[in-house]
Amino acid sequence: MSDSTSNPTLANAFYAQSGGVTAVINASAAGLIETARLHPDRIGKVFAGKNGIIGALKEELIDTSLETNEDIAALKHTPSGAFGSCRFKLKSLQESRAEYERLIAVFKAHNIRYFFYNGGGDSMDTAHKVSQLSETMGYPITCVGVPKTVDNDLPVTDNCPGFGSVAKYIAVSIREAGFDVASMAATSTKVFVMEVMGRHAGWIAAAGGLAAEQEGDAPHIILFPEIPFEQTAFLARVDFCVKTYGYCAIVVSEGVKNPEGQFLADAGTVDVFGHNQLGGVAPVIANLIKSNLGYKYHWAVSDYLQRAARHIASATDVEQAYALGKAAMEFALAGKNATMPIVVRESETPYRWSVGQASLSEVANVEKMLPRDYISEDGFGITAKARTYLQPLIQGEDYPPYKNGLPQYVKLQNKLVSKLIDEDFTI
Amino acid sequence: MSDSTSNPTLANAFYAQSGGVTAVINASAAGLIETARLHPDRIGKVFAGKNGIIGALKEELIDTSLETNEDIAALKHTPSGAFGSCRFKLKSLQESRAEYERLIAVFKAHNIRYFFYNGGGDSMDTAHKVSQLSETMGYPITCVGVPKTVDNDLPVTDNCPGFGSVAKYIAVSIREAGFDVASMAATSTKVFVMEVMGRHAGWIAAAGGLAAEQEGDAPHIILFPEIPFEQTAFLARVDFCVKTYGYCAIVVSEGVKNPEGQFLADAGTVDVFGHNQLGGVAPVIANLIKSNLGYKYHWAVSDYLQRAARHIASATDVEQAYALGKAAMEFALAGKNATMPIVVRESETPYRWSVGQASLSEVANVEKMLPRDYISEDGFGITAKARTYLQPLIQGEDYPPYKNGLPQYVKLQNKLVSKLIDEDFTI
Repeated sequence: MSDSTSNPTLANAFYAQSGGVTAVINASAAGLIETARLHPDRIGKVFAGKNGIIGALKEELIDTSLETNEDIAALKHTPSGAFGSCRFKLKSLQESRAEYERLIAVFKAHNIRYFFYNGGGDSMDTAHKVSQLSETMGYPITCVGVPKTVDNDLPVTDNCPGFGSVAKYIAVSIREAGFDVASMAATSTKVFVMEVMGRHAGWIAAAGGLAAEQEGDAPHIILFPEIPFEQTAFLARVDFCVKTYGYCAIVVSEGVKNPEGQFLADAGTVDVFGHNQLGGVAPVIANLIKSNLGYKYHWAVSDYLQRAARHIASATDVEQAYALGKAAMEFALAGKNATMPIVVRESETPYRWSVGQASLSEVANVEKMLPRDYISEDGFGITAKARTYLQPLIQGEDYPPYKNGLPQYVKLQNKLVSKLIDEDFTI
Repeated sequence: MSDSTSNPTLANAFYAQSGGVTAVINASAAGLIETARLHPDRIGKVFAGKNGIIGALKEELIDTSLETNEDIAALKHTPSGAFGSCRFKLKSLQESRAEYERLIAVFKAHNIRYFFYNGGGDSMDTAHKVSQLSETMGYPITCVGVPKTVDNDLPVTDNCPGFGSVAKYIAVSIREAGFDVASMAATSTKVFVMEVMGRHAGWIAAAGGLAAEQEGDAPHIILFPEIPFEQTAFLARVDFCVKTYGYCAIVVSEGVKNPEGQFLADAGTVDVFGHNQLGGVAPVIANLIKSNLGYKYHWAVSDYLQRAARHIASATDVEQAYALGKAAMEFALAGKNATMPIVVRESETPYRWSVGQASLSEVANVEKMLPRDYISEDGFGITAKARTYLQPLIQGEDYPPYKNGLPQYVKLQNKLVSKLIDEDFTI
């Protein structure tokens, strides 16, 4: 515990996790907090928002100085958001003035002069607004974003922490399932459909393509949100694969749309209770194949398992997540307001990367889509260019410690600081 | 390659993989083939059936002597069935006389005097019938079964190779997803439903319970095929968990039935194309919760991923699978016809096991169900007794080698022996 060494006259920091969590967002937290602990002469406490920015609005501040060095280090191998995350977007200053005023009141009360926001595009928009508070509301604050998203859709940075690990999980899983189906195909299952995350961008689906190294390897087909689903061409391709390779393994993005722009998954499945059933494009695709081609199928939907799968995290991803958390604290201590540390790809072979700097204004609200030239011409696979980009991001294994056959993930104490403001705040 | 050392006058062996494959059935194959290679003076070639017993019927025999020692050793870390499996059950001698005669013709033509059948309950029934061929049809053969099933439903043996690894995958996955949902629950997903295999027996679902070590840990609810689904009690329990722990993580067996004995998953989901949709109890449960309690949910169906997940295999399971393959060959060389090697639990703490011997007649067609006293009184969890039984089976990690960030699984050459019989055989 660094509590006894922290200097009450120093400015404190606020750190929050935002949006969907990942296998490595806690590694960024570890990098950030451990770096702060190296500078007890320059920074006071790091408070973490309980459930993200909501923790700041409700003055529910977790005192991370009460956590042991061992527990903070264990964050590096613990998936999920250790302090709680939230789906909550601060609107513009005009629309949400009361919220910004509340933030400032809480920051003032707890002498918070550093703000760190660990999240995706929406969160970088919020961070950007907070970074302007000295100008817009006269409250001096240094705000640094920390990138995080399994979707890999943040611009400027070469890639986003969180993506490499989900990419590795998907590539490993479709390879394993492909081997399984290949064994069964002679008399049983001939088609396997695996649904992956990525509502808007096909980065995760593309990563599945890494599993196929030779002609005939799984996956044989990838369905991207970027490519409108053409039933006839798709079914012809499935049939070709089954006839040529004996089976067909398919990776389908949850965001696949029909040519009318409608999500296939949302198109109106009704369950036994008569309720409209949302989600699950894999069974839709599987049924389509069964009804048109008659092949026996199996399907899987990994959902949260893919983004929580710390047990098969990419070592590169863990290292980058930690490094960006560390860099964020270093940026803040250097007074670099309105910035975000990024991954810069220095060389392809051997893969080398460094930490660079972006400004939050470039990053906020921009979505980086999968380039068309990463997708093969027929729309069902990835190109060599995509492979070159994706390959380094899944390199290396970084296994968590195990006890009783299970990974040992840390649960922090998460003790809240005493409230200093009288009024509650309703969100 | 052991080809040059094999003695053409020695009797050969036939090995086949049967039914749903696992993360470790190839480890049994490795144990069996490597043991045969240690005895070139006593056994000729090991032929593997291409796609299981069908390979014998169609005289499609893979010459395993053409595979390198390295590739056979790599089977120990390769999931799926390397020679192909099949879902095909030989009926009684009365009903399927032509098939038995064909088997004998193929065995005779290739001087096969040892028969190994690597599978579950149905396969042990087939193996038992084959073991009687000397008596019933005058063909002298030594037949040994090798247990394999993720369902863990074979009797006599303490546990089945394949189960420990799927158990580990499920326990790891629900722990990881539980951490994820806990992070999100304040403003987003409050309920997570994960569907697992086990149509008849709840062994795999029970294994999910290992992830919960303290009050409040995920999973909070397990739904077993052995316990009829009571909607009111279930919903009350979900609501209690969300209100008490902030979220609720559920493991549901695909085999869960309503009080009328109908599978919940089969109860008639209709997809967007108007087709009846089979499978997927997780979305059914999730929707039920949404409509009655209003909680935001996510659901996952791992399907084949769980049984193919060699990347997170249990080291205990791999070791036992290999040991039973090895023992099967040793049993055969010792002339122990109509037997099956089993795992015998020697002690609980420390966990110790040995290889024992069962007779195929005790094993064939008997299903070992999850005992009622392994399930908690309320039907939603596991007991200390279950934990004591399950815990050792997921012990240890046995990671495959990686290259380019992906596990390196072997694909054998699988070259077929020249056919010696003129007629084809139609199945």
